[in-house]
Parts: sequence; structure tokens; C-alpha cells
Amino acid sequence: MLRYEDFEEKTITRKEIFHGKIIDVALDEVRLPDGQTAKRELVFHPGGVGVLALTDENKIVLVKQFRKPLEQVIFEIPAGKIDPGEGRHPEETGARELEEETGYRAESMEHLASMYLSPGFANELLHVYYAKNIKKVDNPLAQDEDEVLEVYEWTLTEAKQAIQEKTICDAKTIFAIQYWELLIAQGRV
Amino acid sequence: MLRYEDFEEKTITRKEIFHGKIIDVALDEVRLPDGQTAKRELVFHPGGVGVLALTDENKIVLVKQFRKPLEQVIFEIPAGKIDPGEGRHPEETGARELEEETGYRAESMEHLASMYLSPGFANELLHVYYAKNIKKVDNPLAQDEDEVLEVYEWTLTEAKQAIQEKTICDAKTIFAIQYWELLIAQGRV
Repeated sequence: MLRYEDFEEKTITRKEIFHGKIIDVALDEVRLPDGQTAKRELVFHPGGVGVLALTDENKIVLVKQFRKPLEQVIFEIPAGKIDPGEGRHPEETGARELEEETGYRAESMEHLASMYLSPGFANELLHVYYAKNIKKVDNPLAQDEDEVLEVYEWTLTEAKQAIQEKTICDAKTIFAIQYWELLIAQGRV
Repeated sequence: MLRYEDFEEKTITRKEIFHGKIIDVALDEVRLPDGQTAKRELVFHPGGVGVLALTDENKIVLVKQFRKPLEQVIFEIPAGKIDPGEGRHPEETGARELEEETGYRAESMEHLASMYLSPGFANELLHVYYAKNIKKVDNPLAQDEDEVLEVYEWTLTEAKQAIQEKTICDAKTIFAIQYWELLIAQGRV
């Protein structure tokens, strides 16, 4: 069994490439365990939160929006990146995004998973919560100014159909729908 | 119901920030549907493939490796990025990575999901395959030169324990383990 030192890549130099509002990009030269050097392209991101929210009618709440990297409109679970100060309480980010994007508020938030999305080049950590007993609120938090959103509520059959049709096509949403399917298969919902 | 034009963000200018071996980075100024402008930070990636491989003893095949963005050694399903020319046949990427990283070859590869990992800023698409009837091969394809890997085979209980302990902590692996759990819950394995 190898030890940590047998795996570790030590940074020799780091070149800062880009400092953005959402991501920072750097290029590292690293020392491999065998003494050779290699380059590592790195993206730093504050992390995000996604929310599985099921209505009283056992439908999933989804948000339709345009995603510039894909040049496509897709359906996702409510989600957003962690704002400064929210890092220790990602469930607050989840509650905020759920309300801003859909107008729903949850009685409680159950942590389902925390996952690095692309550990090969990015440190983005996404937390997924399950929003329990959601209710529409009268005066929800306002949406972000530069976002156009439309809210949908779908059955499991409709959501799985959308995965087939690739209008649902992102990791957090596919994970959340699979979690919902597992809840059903295990008789927990 | 809104139309595509109500969502679309048209690129006004694109600034190329970085051209790497794995990722390209760009900064777009976009025209929002309401006429306002906004900035979009974009990462372009060739995409990748991850493989759920279960042994005859019903254990999952995992690879331990160092991930520079996390400064951490983690356990993941065998995976890798799509090489030039492989884009139309991601199952070939999966078969290659499975053999290079673990020494296993599959009788067939079943497509489970294709998912954008971070659609807010990146176009990276990850395909997940289920490798059927895997067998060790005598002379497997060689590993990449700049990778240090160690192969593990774990039961579902061990894998779920590792998620609790955060040594399994990436999206494709957590998705694959949840898929495996769903197969069991539905009596399909």
C-alpha cells in the first residue's frame, strides 16, 4: 500500500492566469513523486449548493434556464454558488436559492451529499440538500438580476423522460433524480 | 411559457484567456434577453468518461490517486478525459481507461448517463458506463506516465463508509455508487 508521499504532487511554481468573479485559474508546475515534473491546469471555485425539492403531489421542482457554456436552455434543480460568508452553512445557500429561484421555503434541509464535480482540474464542491415539506411563500426573495428562470414541477416519469431527451443533462440534477428514485425503490417516500 | 429567445444570451465579445492542454478559458460579454449586458466566465473541456465496474464478488473497482486541485488523495471510479478522435465513441475511452488504470477488460459497456458537471461555467460532459462481466487481462495497456494509481475493490458497505469519511467525494463516483445501490434496491444485481 502506497503512502501519501508516494502520491503527492508538490507545487514548484504557480502562475496566476485569471482572477474572475466566479473562478480563478492557475497553472502549476508540480514535482511528481518520481522526481519528474508536470503541469497542472487548475480552476478554483467557491462551491455551490443544489436542492432536491419535492412537492406535496410528489413532483420535483425544476428551474429552466440558459447556460452559456452549453449554448442551451436546460432544466436543473434549484442551485447556486456559495456567497462570501455562507461557506460554513451551505444549507443556508440552499434555502436562499430555493426561495429566490422557485418561491418555495422548506421546513428543514437534509444533507444528501457533498461532491467535487471535476477533481481533475477544479476544486468546486457541490452540496446537495433535500428540502423537506416545502411551501410557497407570499413574498419570496428576489431573483438575481441577470438570470431568466422559469419554474416547472414534474413527476418522476416526466423527469426521467427529460433525461432521455437531454433537456435534463447536468450532474446535480441527475444525481438528485436518481436519489428520488432510490427513495421510492426503498419505500421511503 | 417563455421561448428560447427569452432565455438566450448572445455573445457580444469573447476574450480568450488561456489555451491549455486540458482546458481553455474565455470571458464573454453577453447581451441578456432584456437588453442589458453581463460577463460570463467560461471553461471549455473535451469531456470525460467514468466507469462503474463490479467484480464477480460484487465489489466496486476504485482507483486511489492524488488530485492537485484538492491537495488530497481520493478514491474514484476509473475515469479519464476523451482523447482526440474518441469523441464519437466515449465507450472506447471508458474501456481504455478501465484497462489502463485497473487491468480489467469488460465484455460490454452499458451507457448509464451523460452529464454536464458544472453547466454554470464549464461545458465538460461526463459519460458514465457500466462495465459488464469484467476480467483481469494478462498484459493490460500501460498507465499514463504522470499518474500514480492504486487499485481497490470494495463492497457497497465499504464504499458508503468511504463517502461518510470523504475519501470518496467526487460526483461521478458518488453517482455510480448510488446507481449500484439502486440496482440492488430494484433487485437487478
